[in-house]
Amino acid sequence: MNINIPRGTRDFSPDEMFKRRYVENKIRNIFQSFGYREVQTPTFEHLELFTLKSGEEIIEEIYAFKDKGNRDLALRPELTAPVIRFYVEKMQMEPKPLKLFYIGNCYRYDRPQKGRYREFTQVGCELIGTDTPEAQAELVYLAYTILKNIGLRNIVLRLGNLDIIYAFLENMGIKKNQFRELMHLIDKSRFYELEKRLFEMRVAKSKIKMFKEFLNCTSIDKLKGFIEVPAIDKFGEVIDFLKIFGIDNFEIDMKIVRGLDYYKGVVFEIDAPILGAEKQLCGGGEYELVSLFGGKEVPTAGFAIGFDRAVIALEEEGYVFPEQKIDAYVIPINEKMLKNAIKIVNRLREKNIVADVDLMRRGLAKSLKYASSIRAKKAIIVGPQEWGKESVIVRDMDSGEQIEVKIKDLLFKVK
Amino acid sequence: MNINIPRGTRDFSPDEMFKRRYVENKIRNIFQSFGYREVQTPTFEHLELFTLKSGEEIIEEIYAFKDKGNRDLALRPELTAPVIRFYVEKMQMEPKPLKLFYIGNCYRYDRPQKGRYREFTQVGCELIGTDTPEAQAELVYLAYTILKNIGLRNIVLRLGNLDIIYAFLENMGIKKNQFRELMHLIDKSRFYELEKRLFEMRVAKSKIKMFKEFLNCTSIDKLKGFIEVPAIDKFGEVIDFLKIFGIDNFEIDMKIVRGLDYYKGVVFEIDAPILGAEKQLCGGGEYELVSLFGGKEVPTAGFAIGFDRAVIALEEEGYVFPEQKIDAYVIPINEKMLKNAIKIVNRLREKNIVADVDLMRRGLAKSLKYASSIRAKKAIIVGPQEWGKESVIVRDMDSGEQIEVKIKDLLFKVK
Repeated sequence: MNINIPRGTRDFSPDEMFKRRYVENKIRNIFQSFGYREVQTPTFEHLELFTLKSGEEIIEEIYAFKDKGNRDLALRPELTAPVIRFYVEKMQMEPKPLKLFYIGNCYRYDRPQKGRYREFTQVGCELIGTDTPEAQAELVYLAYTILKNIGLRNIVLRLGNLDIIYAFLENMGIKKNQFRELMHLIDKSRFYELEKRLFEMRVAKSKIKMFKEFLNCTSIDKLKGFIEVPAIDKFGEVIDFLKIFGIDNFEIDMKIVRGLDYYKGVVFEIDAPILGAEKQLCGGGEYELVSLFGGKEVPTAGFAIGFDRAVIALEEEGYVFPEQKIDAYVIPINEKMLKNAIKIVNRLREKNIVADVDLMRRGLAKSLKYASSIRAKKAIIVGPQEWGKESVIVRDMDSGEQIEVKIKDLLFKVK
Repeated sequence: MNINIPRGTRDFSPDEMFKRRYVENKIRNIFQSFGYREVQTPTFEHLELFTLKSGEEIIEEIYAFKDKGNRDLALRPELTAPVIRFYVEKMQMEPKPLKLFYIGNCYRYDRPQKGRYREFTQVGCELIGTDTPEAQAELVYLAYTILKNIGLRNIVLRLGNLDIIYAFLENMGIKKNQFRELMHLIDKSRFYELEKRLFEMRVAKSKIKMFKEFLNCTSIDKLKGFIEVPAIDKFGEVIDFLKIFGIDNFEIDMKIVRGLDYYKGVVFEIDAPILGAEKQLCGGGEYELVSLFGGKEVPTAGFAIGFDRAVIALEEEGYVFPEQKIDAYVIPINEKMLKNAIKIVNRLREKNIVADVDLMRRGLAKSLKYASSIRAKKAIIVGPQEWGKESVIVRDMDSGEQIEVKIKDLLFKVK
């Protein structure tokens, strides 16, 4: 009998879910305060959507299966392709810019390891219809604001620009069809091999040296010393706007590649150093998928945040999450008081007080123990003597202090 | 190229998602106010979990697939089996009663039709560890309260009891292994065939007639005229407690079967008649799955609500949902004013005002048109003349009225 939880997946306990919903709601509110609106797409898509975007190799890493109509389907490994598919199918006529966000589970068939699961949650957004520097700066600022405002103290923002790298590669006489291979080596930080490949491609040693220095540039001014292209000026404008939005604390890192063919222009990553090897929380930038999916070309940019990692980073930083509490646990002293106890709990719940009532006909001691285990703030003890005086006993579960309270004053005492 | 949305699934637009999250949050708050705590389980499980619960037939109706390790997996068709699996694996030692709720997507390989999708959302709960009449009444009351409090005006609650039917069948000399076939006919309202089968099973005609009358009983007192078993008394107690919780408006319907072998005792359904043939919104009752999954036997009961249908029922009843609004849309009069416009939007967002800013460098007229399309309440126009006076123009998007407002007073004018 194999009915255990599938390998690489997780069950979330009530305490974990409470944390997760708390962070999720914060993120949703921030997206909305920036004018983004939530969308949702199916959990599975036609496999072709993902192979078209990421190449046939991706089949190795995803849950692909045939449905009973012999269609090739796949559990979504990410949400940009589905959201852009949705845009192309149904939203091309919407006023621009279109600001869409999502919160959803994704799946990857990966060897389970610390912080990497086969089902994981991504939050992210797509900005469709504008590529002005202020639009790109706002996008980066939004990603940064989300991670800051959920409570992370130590995050590192790095920005790169693929258009500038591509211009440099062209300048060295590299052909477009060779870009991919080289970008892959940069992405994986395999610089020794990169040098070797460039040498094999007959790039002059001096140029290779210069490219290495270029990749280590950390300011717009220094970039300008290497190459003159409009992309650098625009990159400078994005960075100026980023400062106006209020971010001073970032690095320029030309080695950010994002590892995917369809990215271009400004790209960025945000890390939480506390997470060590799995420190990347967010990645994003400009990309082009709409025309690939058959839509009318339009500027697109976006980012995705690894929700699970963001929650782990908060935990590692010692963030104090709120806990789900029960305002009041109502205990009837005996079975005759049960109906009265229900009347009390009903009244409290109607006033949006989180209240529960003994459903097991246990004695007072056991019920108090249970009340404490569910973190009830107050116990309300309903006994015949007090009921005769239209009162109940209210016990503070922390101090153990008990007072008699008139039923009509109960709401005030419990809230 | 097949990259359209998969058959039988849905994309949810921003307006739809806003509605859905609104209803979801209401439901979550109600569950929590009753002391229920949220859990989440993986989207897929080992196939065996579902065949064990529902028989091999279910394979026909679900998305089953093999992963790359040749494991038989299935997209979950419902959430009771996963939650009970979670309980058996990790929560058996938790204090009782354990009140768990969930909100999650489920999948069924079904012919798509009106109101039935291949991916759909279920909300529900499991009450583990008590089967007192007050516990069962609270469970039914909770389901009813959720549907009432999300705003449904017309819902119908019906309660049945499988223990009483089983006792009646035994009384007629029917063997336990024949129950399933007969219950199935009752479930499908095939009463002519039911009569025929009972006749073939050599049940006396008078008894068959009596059974038909029994199935049409609508009160505890009438049930007692047919058969005397403790289950009827307990059913009566549940109904008494239901009245104490505040529900007077329900029907007793002995023909509720719930169609699944593992149900027992009190069962109930809640319909929205406005939905016609697909009117059932909620089904639940007592069941026994824990021991089947290898856990220590414990009373369990729960219900599931079809979230999609509940939303459709609200729409059909004309429920007025809130709409996502933008408090303020900030428009720079020219490019020089852009940085000032960003400062304004930043300030508003920091104060939790939902604000957006022109990211396309469009003229005033086009920007106002866009502001109206995203339902902005106010437009804030940032021009050089007013800026010199530390002011901006605030335009009410409904009335078109424009006033000059000092920047320091802006928060007050916009909120």
